[in-house]
Formats: sequence, C-alpha cells, structure tokens
Amino acid sequence: MSTPADLRTLLGIELPIVQAPMAGGFTTAELVAAVSNAGALGSAGAAYLTPSAIHALVAEIRLRTQRPFAVNLFAGGIEAGEADPAPMLALLGPLHDRFGIPPPQAPGAWPYDFEEQLAAVIDAGVPIVTFTFGLPGDAAIARMRAAGRTVIGTATTVGEARRCEAAGCHAVVAQGAEAGAHRGTFLVPFEAAMIGTIALVPQVVDAVGVPVIAAGGIVERRGVAAARALGASGVQCGTAFLDTVEAGTSAPHRRALAAARDRDSVVTRAFSGRPARGLVNAFEQQVDARPDAILPYPQQNALTRPLRNAAAAAGDPENISLWAGQAAPLMLHDVTAADVVRDLAAGWA
Amino acid sequence: MSTPADLRTLLGIELPIVQAPMAGGFTTAELVAAVSNAGALGSAGAAYLTPSAIHALVAEIRLRTQRPFAVNLFAGGIEAGEADPAPMLALLGPLHDRFGIPPPQAPGAWPYDFEEQLAAVIDAGVPIVTFTFGLPGDAAIARMRAAGRTVIGTATTVGEARRCEAAGCHAVVAQGAEAGAHRGTFLVPFEAAMIGTIALVPQVVDAVGVPVIAAGGIVERRGVAAARALGASGVQCGTAFLDTVEAGTSAPHRRALAAARDRDSVVTRAFSGRPARGLVNAFEQQVDARPDAILPYPQQNALTRPLRNAAAAAGDPENISLWAGQAAPLMLHDVTAADVVRDLAAGWA
Repeated sequence: MSTPADLRTLLGIELPIVQAPMAGGFTTAELVAAVSNAGALGSAGAAYLTPSAIHALVAEIRLRTQRPFAVNLFAGGIEAGEADPAPMLALLGPLHDRFGIPPPQAPGAWPYDFEEQLAAVIDAGVPIVTFTFGLPGDAAIARMRAAGRTVIGTATTVGEARRCEAAGCHAVVAQGAEAGAHRGTFLVPFEAAMIGTIALVPQVVDAVGVPVIAAGGIVERRGVAAARALGASGVQCGTAFLDTVEAGTSAPHRRALAAARDRDSVVTRAFSGRPARGLVNAFEQQVDARPDAILPYPQQNALTRPLRNAAAAAGDPENISLWAGQAAPLMLHDVTAADVVRDLAAGWA
Repeated sequence: MSTPADLRTLLGIELPIVQAPMAGGFTTAELVAAVSNAGALGSAGAAYLTPSAIHALVAEIRLRTQRPFAVNLFAGGIEAGEADPAPMLALLGPLHDRFGIPPPQAPGAWPYDFEEQLAAVIDAGVPIVTFTFGLPGDAAIARMRAAGRTVIGTATTVGEARRCEAAGCHAVVAQGAEAGAHRGTFLVPFEAAMIGTIALVPQVVDAVGVPVIAAGGIVERRGVAAARALGASGVQCGTAFLDTVEAGTSAPHRRALAAARDRDSVVTRAFSGRPARGLVNAFEQQVDARPDAILPYPQQNALTRPLRNAAAAAGDPENISLWAGQAAPLMLHDVTAADVVRDLAAGWA
C-alpha cells in the first residue's frame, strides 16, 4: 500500500494533483506550465503531435516553468483491418458543404508514429512520461527508467493496473467510467471496463504496490477528498482545466461545458472510432445512429478532423467533439489553472 | 445543504447507513432486523410481495427489532404495450427442459398492485417508506407525511432528485451507475442516467435541500468515507449485505459473488426486462444476444422467474440473476450483518 507522500516525492511536486493530458490542442504549453508552477503536475497530450512538434512544445513548456511536467502518448489503440469509408463519407458530405470545406476524403496513413513520438519525448528530456491505450514495450520502459524518467500507465481495470505495475510503471492512473474523452482500456472490451471511480480505485489500490492516481468524475475539492478516502495517492483531473484561460479549448466547447447537465454525457465512437466520453450533440447523435458506418480508430478520427476544425472555427458546438467527464456540471469556469489547482488542493488538505 | 446529523435524526438511527432494499427474497426479516439492531437502517424490498405477505414480513421484523426499519416498493416502471413472447418462450424452452420444469408460458397479469402494496405498507405502520422506479402520487405522499411516516425516494439524476424533493420526500437516495440490481431511473432514458457515484452525489447535494443518501459502489469503509467526502448525509449499501448469514441470497449467487472480478459486471435487461446490474453469466449472455426477444418489464421478469427459481434450487449460477454492484470484489463474505455495519461505520467515523 502506497502513501500520498510517495507520489509527491516520486513526481517532485508539492500537490498530488495531475492535470490530465488531453490530446488535440487543449494542453497548451501555457496550461501545462501554469499547473506545474502552481505546485501540481502539468501534462501535455502529445498523441497528435509529430516528433518536431513534440520538441517544440516541450521547449515552450521549459520556457515557462522550471518544475516537473509530463508528456502523454497513446501507446496502442490502432485498429487493423480494412473498412469501407463510403457510408461515413456520404454522411459527412452534406456537413462539409454546410461549412464550406472540400468534400471529405478517405483517410490516408495515420501521420503519427508511436515509436518516433516516444523517441522524441525521450530525446527532449521529458521527466515524466505517461501512457494510455496501452504501454510501450518492456525494453522502452526499461530504457526510460534507466535514464531516470518516471513512467506512468493508465488502467481502467484491476488487470490493466497489474499489467502497468509488472511492466515497470512507477505509478498508475486508475481511470473510472466517469472520465472525459478517450477510454484508456487496452486488455478487455471497453464495455467490461466501464467501472465507476468509487468502485475501481480501492480495487486497484489493493491490487498494486505503486501509487494509484484516481481519475474520472473529479473536478473539484469534494471529488479530490473522495479519491483520497478511497486510498488514492493523488488525482488526475482533465475536465476541471478545460475552461481555464490557459487551455486551448475552443469557444463553442467552453460554452457547451458551461451549459452541461448531469444527463448530457455519452460515451461515443462517433468522433474518433474509439469510445470516448463527451456531451451529446447533433454530430454524435447522427453518427451513433449509424454505428456500422463508423470507421475504426484512428481512421474515424482522421476522417472527422476537418469537419471538427471547421465547426470549431465557426463557433458551432454541434459538430465538434465536446469531451467532458460526468462531473462537468461541477467545474469552475473562466478561471486560471492556478485557481483550479487551488480548489482541488483544498480537497486533499 | 444538509448535514449528516440530519439523516440520523430523521430516521431515528445511530449510524447513517442504510441497508438497501433488495426485492426477491434477499432482505429477510432476519437481515432487516439485524441491521437495525446494529444501529443502521434495515430495509425490506417488498416489490414482489402481496399485501398479506407484506403484513407478514413486517410482523416478522417487529418480532426481531424495536428499532426503525424501512420498506421499499417499486413505484412505477410497468411498461405498457403488447410484445410477442414467442421468441423468448422459444429461447427458454430448452432451459426449462434442462432443469426438468414445465415449458415456459406467456406471462399472465403481474400479480403485484402498487396501490394495494402501498396501502399494506401504510396499514402495517411501517415508519420509513422508500421508493424506486418513481414515486407515488402527491396525495399518497402527503398522507404518509401526515401520518408521521418518513418518505424517501430514489434518484439517478439531478432532475429525479429535484422531483423527489418537490414531491415531499424527506430524503433522497442518489443511486450511482455502480449500483447493483435495478436502476431506479424514472424521468430519462436509462442510458442518460448511468452517472458514476463520485459525479452524481455532489451534483445532487448541490441541487436539493433534503439529506442525500449515496448509493452505488459502496461496500466497505473506503466507499463510505468517500461518500461522506462527497457531501452525502449517509450511504445505502446493498451488495455489502448479500453474503451475510441473515440474507436470503442463494448459494450459487453467494459463490459467484465470492469469485467476482471488477470486469465481470454488466447492466442487463435479460432477467426482468428492466436494466439491472449483475455479474455476467450464461443466461445473461444468451439473452442479451437476442435483445429484440426481451419482453418489457415486468413481463420478462415473470417469464424468467420459474427458470431462475429452478436454477437456484439446483445450485446453478449460470441461469439466475447475479445482482451485484461494481464494488462486489471488495465485499465481506460469510459474516453477520452486524459485521458489515461495523465495517461500513468505520468509514463514516
């Protein structure tokens, strides 16, 4: 059984609070640095960045903070197999027309190579490297450990947490079903791993010897206090930071978060092909009505990206991914990252 | 905002812990009385009892305890409409053969009338009356209040909690998605109300002025401590009591609980026609593969009852409902109800 102090010592931070990595432009260098400067751990989601973009982002973060920070990658999740893109292209066509962008095209090769991304993260000297969708190979973890890097995996089941520990992770994030955006599940079907945080965290704490970071449904001090009561060594919060001034969240996404109700949350494959939690909107409903047309991850992700970018630019919340955890109605709005860290920290005290 | 003391005063109990009502023979008079005698609140699930059986159960409870106890009814949930039972009858036929019971027959009229049950509960002088699947009419609630009864509703969303408060409930159970057995949802589609306890409870606490009882994923002291941190005035635990010596749980159900893993949980309509959480087994998988054949609640419930009874008697865990919440792997086994109350109470202290 680990103690809270372990995690703070392990990560070199004052507060056992991790700002969740959120790939897709949310975790700007400003956000990551502001969180770390506030005494918590900022994390950059780098899964949709090329190696050179990773180097640039890390340099930007380093300009803004001397403190530890983390970078996260998707270590898996790519589904093999051919899928006919025609039905989804037909669905997207009228939406592209509406936003005045060129017709959708069948996605080409996924532009992000995990091994190259990982090499960039290591080369850039990132002190804390976190993974979701799986883990890198044992050799890569051993190399990071030998180089003094801290390695953290993401688990949505007890079995995944044990796998993370066995693979050499220094800590594990236990991601409950309430969590926003992509599920980290990698050993079982997604449906079998929709375990609520209050049930998952103590089971993971009992199963592994490394510190457990609770995630899912934690956006303010009460959730943090609950996670501590469950035996977690710290918390990871994503949604909580989505409406901070430093985050890269689009304006329509922020407005949707401010209007979010408890029952507006859905886990959907509509945007990326991989189950992820967000707020219901028109695109989600239109696509989920056609489940057979959804391409596997990451093809669906690539295919819907132009529309989502155009909709975000147009200020339209109905055709973008509105990632949010189930506790979104409790989040703070129009605040700084330091404000959020302060509120969360009050729950641990 | 309510305080924990409110609930104890309201219910006349020492510990803010409610043993969940579990219809179907689990909540024996012995269990209810043992929980109340231990300082918590025992609850009898009476939804599948006739008025005379309700009177008999209440009398049995009164023989065993002088303390307050609760009786629960299903206040709604009956789905109207015709459905063809032929496909489900065909599916059940070979299973009936296997257990040597007469062929399944299309269900007749549901034998339990809510208004008659409610009259029995009131006539029997039950001090605390709790509801799920909805609420009785305002007049009935007013009558119970005028008679000095305490009325508690069940909510799975903020809107349902507000409805409970507006209807005159003295307290509300906030049932998170982790909870075992039937979902209490009555105002929105079930899928929209699968909100994890850590996210739901603080939202409900903020929304209503009556005490909030947290339910879902709480089977031992850490869950209780978490619920308190979330602002709950108490907890309701069902799974925690399923393997006590006083409970009416069948032997194969107890064995399945002892073997439960975190990822074995599923919400299914297979047994009753209404979504309920239990452990995966052969019957659940066989029926959920044929969703169009499942009859509405309570017809499916009536139709599958003979098979479940036969399977339970035969000690077969694969053809009974294995109700369990997501924290089942953390529960105590082969203990008394007082042992469970003691463990849960340690989390509130």
